[in-house]
Amino acid sequence: MQSPVFRFPLRIYWEDTDGRGLVHPSKMLHFYERARTEWLRALGIEQQKLREQTGGIFVVTHASVHYAAPARLDDQLWVTAQLESAGRASITLSQQALLQHAVSSDDQPQLLSEGRIRIGWVDATSMRPARIPASILEQLS
Amino acid sequence: MQSPVFRFPLRIYWEDTDGRGLVHPSKMLHFYERARTEWLRALGIEQQKLREQTGGIFVVTHASVHYAAPARLDDQLWVTAQLESAGRASITLSQQALLQHAVSSDDQPQLLSEGRIRIGWVDATSMRPARIPASILEQLS
Amino acid sequence: MQSPVFRFPLRIYWEDTDGRGLVHPSKMLHFYERARTEWLRALGIEQQKLREQTGGIFVVTHASVHYAAPARLDDQLWVTAQLESAGRASITLSQQALLQHAVSSDDQPQLLSEGRIRIGWVDATSMRPARIPASILEQLS
Amino acid sequence: MQSPVFRFPLRIYWEDTDGRGLVHPSKMLHFYERARTEWLRALGIEQQKLREQTGGIFVVTHASVHYAAPARLDDQLWVTAQLESAGRASITLSQQALLQHAVSSDDQPQLLSEGRIRIGWVDATSMRPARIPASILEQLS
Repeated sequence: MQSPVFRFPLRIYWEDTDGRGLVHPSKMLHFYERARTEWLRALGIEQQKLREQTGGIFVVTHASVHYAAPARLDDQLWVTAQLESAGRASITLSQQALLQHAVSSDDQPQLLSEGRIRIGWVDATSMRPARIPASILEQLS
Repeated sequence: MQSPVFRFPLRIYWEDTDGRGLVHPSKMLHFYERARTEWLRALGIEQQKLREQTGGIFVVTHASVHYAAPARLDDQLWVTAQLESAGRASITLSQQALLQHAVSSDDQPQLLSEGRIRIGWVDATSMRPARIPASILEQLS
Repeated sequence: MQSPVFRFPLRIYWEDTDGRGLVHPSKMLHFYERARTEWLRALGIEQQKLREQTGGIFVVTHASVHYAAPARLDDQLWVTAQLESAGRASITLSQQALLQHAVSSDDQPQLLSEGRIRIGWVDATSMRPARIPASILEQLS
Repeated sequence: MQSPVFRFPLRIYWEDTDGRGLVHPSKMLHFYERARTEWLRALGIEQQKLREQTGGIFVVTHASVHYAAPARLDDQLWVTAQLESAGRASITLSQQALLQHAVSSDDQPQLLSEGRIRIGWVDATSMRPARIPASILEQLS
C-alpha cells in the first residue's frame, strides 16, 4: 500500500534564483526539506523537540534530484513528500516540485523536479547512525 | 582513458553549517559547482564570457549525492571534478568532497561525499536544450 | 501620515539556521526581502512582470539590521514592511521580524530584529540608477 | 592608533548571484563573515575550538551595509576586516568588499560595499550576552 502524498505550497523569491534567471539547483534540496519538515509536523513530529527528547536527529544521507523544468521568480510551487520505505535506521522519501497553474481547473501542475531522499537517524552528539525510536516509526507509518 | 581529476580547496564557514552542527546537505551542490567552475576556468572557459559569446549556459539537469561523513565548521576540504562522459547536449561529472588531514603525510583524505552531476547546455533566453558548441567540447576533452 | 504596516508570516527551517543553533544573520535579509516582495504583490506589483514592462528592477542599496533576539528552528515569525519614505530614485522601508506567540491572546510578539532597507531603482541592463516609474510610485503611496 | 586592515580574497560563483544578475545583498554578510573568520584565524582564534574551550560564541548583533556597486559572476574580490573598537561584551569592525582589477598596476580596486558589523559574545547554551574572555581581547588588540 502506498503512503499518502503530503503537499506543501511555497513561493519563489529573489534569494532562490541565480544569475541564470532560474532557481538555483541547490534550492530544490531546501524546498524538499521544508516539505519533509511540514510532513513530519503534520504527523506530530517537531524536530527541535525531537532532539531534546531523544538526543537524535534526522540527517540526509543520500539525495538524488532530476531537474525537469526551470522554476522562476514569483512562481508558486507545490512540493510533495511521500514515504517510500522505512527501515530501522533510515527512511526514504519520494519528492516532487510542481508548478501551480492558475489558468484553468483542467491544468495539470507541471513537474519541475523529482527526487529521492534518504534520511538517516543519528545521535546528535556523536553523529553516529542509530535506530530510529520506535515511537517515531509508528507515527510515520 | 579516464579524464584527469581536478581538485579545488575550500574552507567551511558558519554560512555552510546548519543547526545540526554540520554542513547543510544543499551546500554540497554549491561546493561541487565551485569546483566545476574552477575546472572550467582551468580549461580556459569562463561562464560569463561564454554566455556573451554563445548565448548558451550550462544548467544542472541531474544531481545525485551520497553523504558519507559530516563536514564541520573550520574544516578544510578538497572538492574534485572529473569528466565522466560528454555528449552533444550534456556532460556528466563525478565529484567528491574530501576532508584534508594535516596530521601526517600518510593520512588519506577522508571521503565526505561523492556525487554524479549531469550538466545540460541550454539557450540562455529560451532555456531550451541545445548542442554544446564544438569548441567547448574540444576544450573539455 | 504613517504608511500601513504590511505583515507576512514565515517559518524557520534547517536551511535558515547555522552551527550556532540560531538563524544565520544573513537570512534576515532574505526574510525582509520576502516580506517586501509580498508587500509589493499586495499593491499589485510583480517584480518579474515589472522588469519585462519597464526594463527596471529594484536593488538594495543600503541595509541596516539590529538583531535583538535569536530565532530558532521551527519558530513562526511575522515579518513586517512599512514604507518610510519614497523619493524619485529610491524608497526606504522599516522592517521587523517578530516571534509569534501562541500562548495567550495577551502575548505581545517578541522583537527578533528591526532594520531599515533602502531600495534603489536601476536599469536592469546597465545597472545604472534611474527614476522610479511614476505609476509605481503611485501604487506605493 | 588604527588597527591593521586584514584582507581576504574570494571569488563570485553562481550560488552568490540572483536573478537580477548581481550578487544577492545577503551574500555580502557571508563574505564579511568569511573575512572576519580568517582574520580571527590569523590571530590564532578558531571559533570551533573557542566554543569548546570557553562555552562562548560570537554572534552578529548589528550589521549595516552600504552597497556601492554591483558584483557579478566570476568577479574576484578582496574583502577586508578592520577592528574599530573592542568593548567588554562586543567588538565592532569596519569591512569592505573591493573588486580586484588586473588591468594595470595603477588601478585602484573598486569599492563594492562597505559595512560596519558589531559582534557580541554570548554563552552558547543560554545565548545570553557575556564578557569576552580576557585572553581573546588580548589576541584581538
